[in-house]
Amino acid sequence: MTSATAGQEPGSSDSPATAGGSRSLRAWEQVVEWVEQRILSGQIRVGDQLPAERELAAQLGLSRSAVREAVRTLQANGVVRSSVGAGPSGGTTVTAVPHHALTRLLRLHVALANFPIDDVTEVRVVLERLSASLASRHAGLTALRRMRETVERMDAEGLSREDFNALDTDFHVAIAEAAGNSLATDLTVAIRESLRLPILAGFKASDDWDSLNAMLRREHHAILDAVEAREPDRAAELVEQHIRSAYERMPSLHGQWRGVADA
Amino acid sequence: MTSATAGQEPGSSDSPATAGGSRSLRAWEQVVEWVEQRILSGQIRVGDQLPAERELAAQLGLSRSAVREAVRTLQANGVVRSSVGAGPSGGTTVTAVPHHALTRLLRLHVALANFPIDDVTEVRVVLERLSASLASRHAGLTALRRMRETVERMDAEGLSREDFNALDTDFHVAIAEAAGNSLATDLTVAIRESLRLPILAGFKASDDWDSLNAMLRREHHAILDAVEAREPDRAAELVEQHIRSAYERMPSLHGQWRGVADA
Repeated sequence: MTSATAGQEPGSSDSPATAGGSRSLRAWEQVVEWVEQRILSGQIRVGDQLPAERELAAQLGLSRSAVREAVRTLQANGVVRSSVGAGPSGGTTVTAVPHHALTRLLRLHVALANFPIDDVTEVRVVLERLSASLASRHAGLTALRRMRETVERMDAEGLSREDFNALDTDFHVAIAEAAGNSLATDLTVAIRESLRLPILAGFKASDDWDSLNAMLRREHHAILDAVEAREPDRAAELVEQHIRSAYERMPSLHGQWRGVADA
Repeated sequence: MTSATAGQEPGSSDSPATAGGSRSLRAWEQVVEWVEQRILSGQIRVGDQLPAERELAAQLGLSRSAVREAVRTLQANGVVRSSVGAGPSGGTTVTAVPHHALTRLLRLHVALANFPIDDVTEVRVVLERLSASLASRHAGLTALRRMRETVERMDAEGLSREDFNALDTDFHVAIAEAAGNSLATDLTVAIRESLRLPILAGFKASDDWDSLNAMLRREHHAILDAVEAREPDRAAELVEQHIRSAYERMPSLHGQWRGVADA
């Protein structure tokens, strides 16, 4: 179980790498990579414990501080959990990455990478078409009820734009969850959440909020009707139209998005 | 610039939260959240410096160690970079999340979350349909040449299954990159890479490797022909057929995937 990748650059690379530039792995990154390779190849699974710090350091020919740093990083990303105390019950256990860890990083990535909003919109379209289509086939009664309630709460008088936006996000998330494809759900949620603030800004910049929100509510009702009628193709088509027309009708979204994301 | 979220749970929450369970934020997580909220709202942008550790701790009413822990986590995910030295030139700068940070987490997430391979396949289909379609419209000469070279290298005699798989991954990544939609590229790369080992295992388990690899090469040629002919719909259709039929023709993939991903 000795690693082929580890040990290439022993302890010396513990010092910070030259910022940026082409990547030679630092010591802690080598440890992370070692763990990740074993997870990806199935040698380490959810519920397994990592070797103890000292043991792992010896095995990889790296310093204990490199191992500690790596474990902390894996922990911050929810890949491992360390239990308190160093006794036999303590240790570092591999966990399933919690959805919020991925969502958070993807959301930040979308915000910082300065993806053109057109790119984000195209990806949203294909993912949400998939979700709407699968939801039309598979949504159970509880999921349908949740979508119906969300849609109806959006019809309430005098909703603030913040509340409206929160419910709007909920509706799209509910469809993704009803689809029963957990990877599509995670990606859709992350992308929709990364758009939460730009979309809210779009609402706030709208010259005619009453007609914008009436349009959005009408479209949500139509999508839900198609899902309830079990018409996958129509639901997918309506979701695509909805995303594209909302985007068209919020010209400020471009400006706002650039404002948010440009360096 | 005082935060509304920070300060709710002062220093006391510095101690480790009860493992798992519903989430009340630990101190360092509050700091991460504070930074993230400001990034998502555009108050902090790429190139900006975070306040100094001491200042941020005072501002949020949290300990300096919580701030340090948060910065380390953001650093590990590539959200910030700390320059060595604490002088006026030192400090913590917000950077664009490097693609490999997201790819790595998404890849791990796909491996650990134990997504059914059917779910992963459906998401691949919609993302790669998008990529193939956009590549047919937008691929430049360099991108086309790269795809052509990859496809031709796969025709070489006596390629090992490992090398074949590496080139296969390259081909799908090349299409995603040629599409010019950077979010679709990142997601496609992460998902295809998370499948690298299961697919290799599928190749190895194949009873008739010669005909499997002949089929895959034929399909790659056909996809590339469609992209070169600038036929987006045909390219999208061929990619979908290719992904689905490869999956069908590797029955071990189900078994292997379960083997890899089940806890």
